[in-house]
Amino acid sequence: MSSTNEIAADAPQEKSEKALKREAEKAAKKAAKEAEKAAKAERAVAMSAARGVSVQCSTAPPVELEACSGTRDWYPEEFRLQRWLFEKFRQTATRTGFEEYDAPVLERQELYKRKAGEEITSQMYAFVDQDGVDVTLRPEMTPTLARMVLGRAASMMLPLKWFSIPQCWRFETTQRGRKREHYQWNMDIIGCKSISAETELLYAVCEFFRSIGITSADVGIKVNSRKVMASVLDSYGITAEKFAPVCVIMDKLDKIGDEAVIEELVNAQNLPKETAEKIVACLACKNVDELAALCGEGVDQTGIEELKRLFSLADDYGFGDWLIFDASVVRGLAYYTGIVFEGFDRAGELRAICGGGRYDKLLSLYGAMSEVPACGFGFGDCVIVELLKEKGLVPVLPKSIEFVVAAFNEGMQGKAMKAAALIRSGGADVDMLLEPKKKVANTFDYANRIGARYIVFVAPQEWENGMVRIKDLRAEYTDKEDEKQLDVKLSDLGRVSELLREHEAAMRTVNEIETMAI
Amino acid sequence: MSSTNEIAADAPQEKSEKALKREAEKAAKKAAKEAEKAAKAERAVAMSAARGVSVQCSTAPPVELEACSGTRDWYPEEFRLQRWLFEKFRQTATRTGFEEYDAPVLERQELYKRKAGEEITSQMYAFVDQDGVDVTLRPEMTPTLARMVLGRAASMMLPLKWFSIPQCWRFETTQRGRKREHYQWNMDIIGCKSISAETELLYAVCEFFRSIGITSADVGIKVNSRKVMASVLDSYGITAEKFAPVCVIMDKLDKIGDEAVIEELVNAQNLPKETAEKIVACLACKNVDELAALCGEGVDQTGIEELKRLFSLADDYGFGDWLIFDASVVRGLAYYTGIVFEGFDRAGELRAICGGGRYDKLLSLYGAMSEVPACGFGFGDCVIVELLKEKGLVPVLPKSIEFVVAAFNEGMQGKAMKAAALIRSGGADVDMLLEPKKKVANTFDYANRIGARYIVFVAPQEWENGMVRIKDLRAEYTDKEDEKQLDVKLSDLGRVSELLREHEAAMRTVNEIETMAI
Repeated sequence: MSSTNEIAADAPQEKSEKALKREAEKAAKKAAKEAEKAAKAERAVAMSAARGVSVQCSTAPPVELEACSGTRDWYPEEFRLQRWLFEKFRQTATRTGFEEYDAPVLERQELYKRKAGEEITSQMYAFVDQDGVDVTLRPEMTPTLARMVLGRAASMMLPLKWFSIPQCWRFETTQRGRKREHYQWNMDIIGCKSISAETELLYAVCEFFRSIGITSADVGIKVNSRKVMASVLDSYGITAEKFAPVCVIMDKLDKIGDEAVIEELVNAQNLPKETAEKIVACLACKNVDELAALCGEGVDQTGIEELKRLFSLADDYGFGDWLIFDASVVRGLAYYTGIVFEGFDRAGELRAICGGGRYDKLLSLYGAMSEVPACGFGFGDCVIVELLKEKGLVPVLPKSIEFVVAAFNEGMQGKAMKAAALIRSGGADVDMLLEPKKKVANTFDYANRIGARYIVFVAPQEWENGMVRIKDLRAEYTDKEDEKQLDVKLSDLGRVSELLREHEAAMRTVNEIETMAI
Repeated sequence: MSSTNEIAADAPQEKSEKALKREAEKAAKKAAKEAEKAAKAERAVAMSAARGVSVQCSTAPPVELEACSGTRDWYPEEFRLQRWLFEKFRQTATRTGFEEYDAPVLERQELYKRKAGEEITSQMYAFVDQDGVDVTLRPEMTPTLARMVLGRAASMMLPLKWFSIPQCWRFETTQRGRKREHYQWNMDIIGCKSISAETELLYAVCEFFRSIGITSADVGIKVNSRKVMASVLDSYGITAEKFAPVCVIMDKLDKIGDEAVIEELVNAQNLPKETAEKIVACLACKNVDELAALCGEGVDQTGIEELKRLFSLADDYGFGDWLIFDASVVRGLAYYTGIVFEGFDRAGELRAICGGGRYDKLLSLYGAMSEVPACGFGFGDCVIVELLKEKGLVPVLPKSIEFVVAAFNEGMQGKAMKAAALIRSGGADVDMLLEPKKKVANTFDYANRIGARYIVFVAPQEWENGMVRIKDLRAEYTDKEDEKQLDVKLSDLGRVSELLREHEAAMRTVNEIETMAI
């Protein structure tokens, strides 16, 4: 803004009010153009940075200003994306009839002590609390869910369909896309032994992808059955007891390769090398029948039938194109007992996007009198954002608000607050300019910075007439400054959005008629 | 349900389908009456508990099933209330132009080491992580906010108006209404030295109370100024250095009483007994002028002026009736420097509901090159719920969903899933019955248990005609069973809610005409 547009706040009021309006019109015109240029609010902030006041911070602050290593702060611009994503999770789940729950991030360590060689237990944020209890930040949500269901077992009617978006913690080595915390959307069905449960979960996963613009050409879901794997491994002489730890090792195939998996099966599980090699070989099966053939004769066929039923139901449900069978998917958690699955990007650039499966024995491990059928999945908030970035699907979510209310001077601040309250009473979002600006141009700058559509000016002259003056900063319907503003009675401020829409429609009509006349 | 209403699933299909419909009508009638009786879904669940399957849990489970001591699980019924409350927090904040942010629950301990004798530092969930860093679950949010602002100082345009609803942790002795974790709605304004900032925050607090039905007859907000207290204490010879720890002790007045506060001031801060007595006496001032008089002549009057300005702006803003001056409110945190305030129930039954104030020196403590004006409040999620209970204002939020889709038998499950997907594509929430019930009555039980309005039956006969049959379980508009149902084409399922509204309106009209004719 050039200095000719500046108005001294201490000039005589009569004169300065007139000047204010003239100058405001100029400033509005200029600001409107600027706002158009700076389409993204983030960029607008950067552009106007030179004009505003920012914090000056020491280059050697006495405290560390970064969040703890491997963890994320959510500044408002990042929070908007987080909230957008979480609302998509939430909408998918509620549309599918799931209920939301939550639990403390702090749990007792005993919940995770499964001794199956999983990474999870060695990577916990574990400590002893002031009462001497061994506690930890939860590394995953499923054990908490099982604990909660059993905690109110008598009043829990099955099946339950529950979801949650908890923050989970693992003390991992930090890398790109690998944090020490992540939020993980969990959906679980407790009390349904039918394969319909897995089908419902996979449907929800696919619906979520669709809701954010991801297609089955971008993402696939690999499906396998631990029940079938157990039959195959049984035929190789692997006992039921050894099955879970063997799965945990098999899961490392992608990361460490065939040889290392064979070595670990031999060393950690005392398997004959030949058996270990056969196990690794069976992970290469590329269809259900091929795997079934490995089971040999006389083996329980329910696992195979479940897989076939799942693919058939998925076709009926309309998401068959997302699924592929893959015998190498066994998942790294010990508790899975049936179908397991894993979402992956078909371009092969990213880590697994989500994963889950059936865990029919977990609740009995924690105290259920008999096996309680259960299945679920976890879906982290990091890899999916990487995928959205790669596909150019991250939504633009600029800061924005409908109104900003500005007092003419300090003496009008109370009146301006009253006006703000009146507008909010009608349901609109209103930012109150806390310290009246000496220069009108600065008020426009502020309005642009916060993404406001309208400035409500509260000045003595209009106030005496029971009015405020409202400027539209994004009036595409006219070039005339007087058509971009509207004086509104205080008693009408509760329905001001409606009045402004009417004004816009009227101005649009007037200008269309003028254009036609020309 | 009597056994005469039961239909065997394995009966010949032709016959059983007809029977199904007859019996379904009876069952629907019965179920509708039952649903009316059990207005609250929670009660309905309990009532039907005998009919469903629940989990049986050992009386001596191998893991503790309760959440960690002093922490809360959020089962779906409790989560609905939490979400209702949080959305009220959120709506109040966004309506006032505040932006949401978040941060990890884990912070470095150094952020809280203020050495002013606050309880907060001795009650932390503190530990050393695997990297050897001293970390803690955050006991409060303000230090995190200050850290974040400084972390991006250069690009932060002031003022900032931010809010958050973080979970905060303190290792306290657990009592009724005193947990070790709570969620705390925080609203803060950084970069505004004007008393308008405090006014805006207090406005938001009052608007929140109003939005949940609490009036200024239920709740008041005590306001004081540490700046004024500092002037008074300065006249008693209390140095600026001692001011913060003296405030922390003064704050205990309500809890431990006059004598104990005087004793602690004498012992912990080495004050003469006479001075300690004068300090406690000044806390009894009941209006601003009385307190101002204690400052004596020649003392900086800005604190007094700010208080008066605050009360005046609050009147203009329309919430003056909520505020009262109270010199005994100093708040227990060391960092407050100006206005402090505390929400309380006027009945005097509960602990402080919320509290906050100005903390102009905190950011410079963490590395800002000069003082950054700041103020904010914290508003916990526990005491407010106690208050709502006492006032009978806790909302009834039963479990509910628009549709449940039920397959006639296992063979129709894939078709039923397709129907569910079609209905959801129109935006409706749909629960899929995962395992078809052998008895129709059980389907109605299930529908009532989940609070469904409509059951969508997917049976072979209608399916062959490209239709499904929909039963309205809460049809108040008719007593006739055939008027409570509608056959809908698959191609219309995307707009089924609209069709059902039309059907309802038509039936209502028909029955009104019939009533008039009689």
